[in-house]
Amino acid sequence: MTETNKKDASLENENTEDKNLEETPEAEVIFAEEEIEAENVETPSEEDSKLADLEAKYNELENRYLRLQADFDNSRRRARLDAEAAQKYRAQSLASDLLTALDNFERATKVEANNEQTKSLLSGMDMVYKGLLEALKKEGITPIETVGKEFDPHLHQAVMQVEDDSFDANVVVEEFQKGYMLKDRVLRPAMVKVNG
Amino acid sequence: MTETNKKDASLENENTEDKNLEETPEAEVIFAEEEIEAENVETPSEEDSKLADLEAKYNELENRYLRLQADFDNSRRRARLDAEAAQKYRAQSLASDLLTALDNFERATKVEANNEQTKSLLSGMDMVYKGLLEALKKEGITPIETVGKEFDPHLHQAVMQVEDDSFDANVVVEEFQKGYMLKDRVLRPAMVKVNG
Repeated sequence: MTETNKKDASLENENTEDKNLEETPEAEVIFAEEEIEAENVETPSEEDSKLADLEAKYNELENRYLRLQADFDNSRRRARLDAEAAQKYRAQSLASDLLTALDNFERATKVEANNEQTKSLLSGMDMVYKGLLEALKKEGITPIETVGKEFDPHLHQAVMQVEDDSFDANVVVEEFQKGYMLKDRVLRPAMVKVNG
Repeated sequence: MTETNKKDASLENENTEDKNLEETPEAEVIFAEEEIEAENVETPSEEDSKLADLEAKYNELENRYLRLQADFDNSRRRARLDAEAAQKYRAQSLASDLLTALDNFERATKVEANNEQTKSLLSGMDMVYKGLLEALKKEGITPIETVGKEFDPHLHQAVMQVEDDSFDANVVVEEFQKGYMLKDRVLRPAMVKVNG
């Protein structure tokens, strides 16, 4: 390359620096050193920019990797929490659907038996009712306590108010319809009469 | 650097190549050219190897990124399927727990009423029972058909076998205990008598 440049310069008969340099080894040295500098500036710069480009690409990919990993972690955590909540409250829909039948069960068995057969049937139905509540309890569904408890607007829905000196103020004195909890959730508040 | 080396060499008074080269410009040129070659061989190779290293690192990271993305996709798909299954069969546990109470309900109400009060109570309890089955049906829990149906070992558990010409062979002739489906799952097979 260097030799070619010098020949080209000679052929063109121009008084270029290249041509002058040919005459003295001293100058040749300088020329060679200039070439070194040119090499240092040019070739590594191309390599450097390739390297810089790749480094930028690498860093960008690394950021994307870290973001993806964070998204993955979040997604797994969310899925776990969702699954736990779904598991915890899985009985909610069926339990809610059963409440009406349970209400009717209670109402239908509020009978004063006037014969042995009815008495026997009522006793059997009472056991069945307790069995139903037991099954609900296994899934975390429990009746809300009412009569004698302090009125709690989260658990009790006051549909009547009375003045009754035999109870403390703000205490539930009667239950009209059972309320139910599903673990820490109120499945349905109890309908009650409160002492004012 | 080259100058420094030369000075160092001089100071140490060693007969090194560096020292000899100092004496002739010719040699200086050769030295300089050797330096160029050294630069050409060494520096780009160093850059190249840096580039190659980084390329390898980049490719490795890219593979990790793609694997992570595939893992993420799989994890999301699995979580979705798990959530769907959990949702689909969410009532299973409560429904299973309720079956015993339902069995007792059926048994307790199999009474021939000998008075009006029992008759009325039985009629009320029949409505309650239908209400319970209705609530279960809303969650996909349905009784398995038995009497008159062909015996199916997936749905029916044969606890007795008879020879009855009034039924076809391999047909269920009596139900001892109700079986239940939860959607496409058998919650509990029905206990039946089969015509052999």
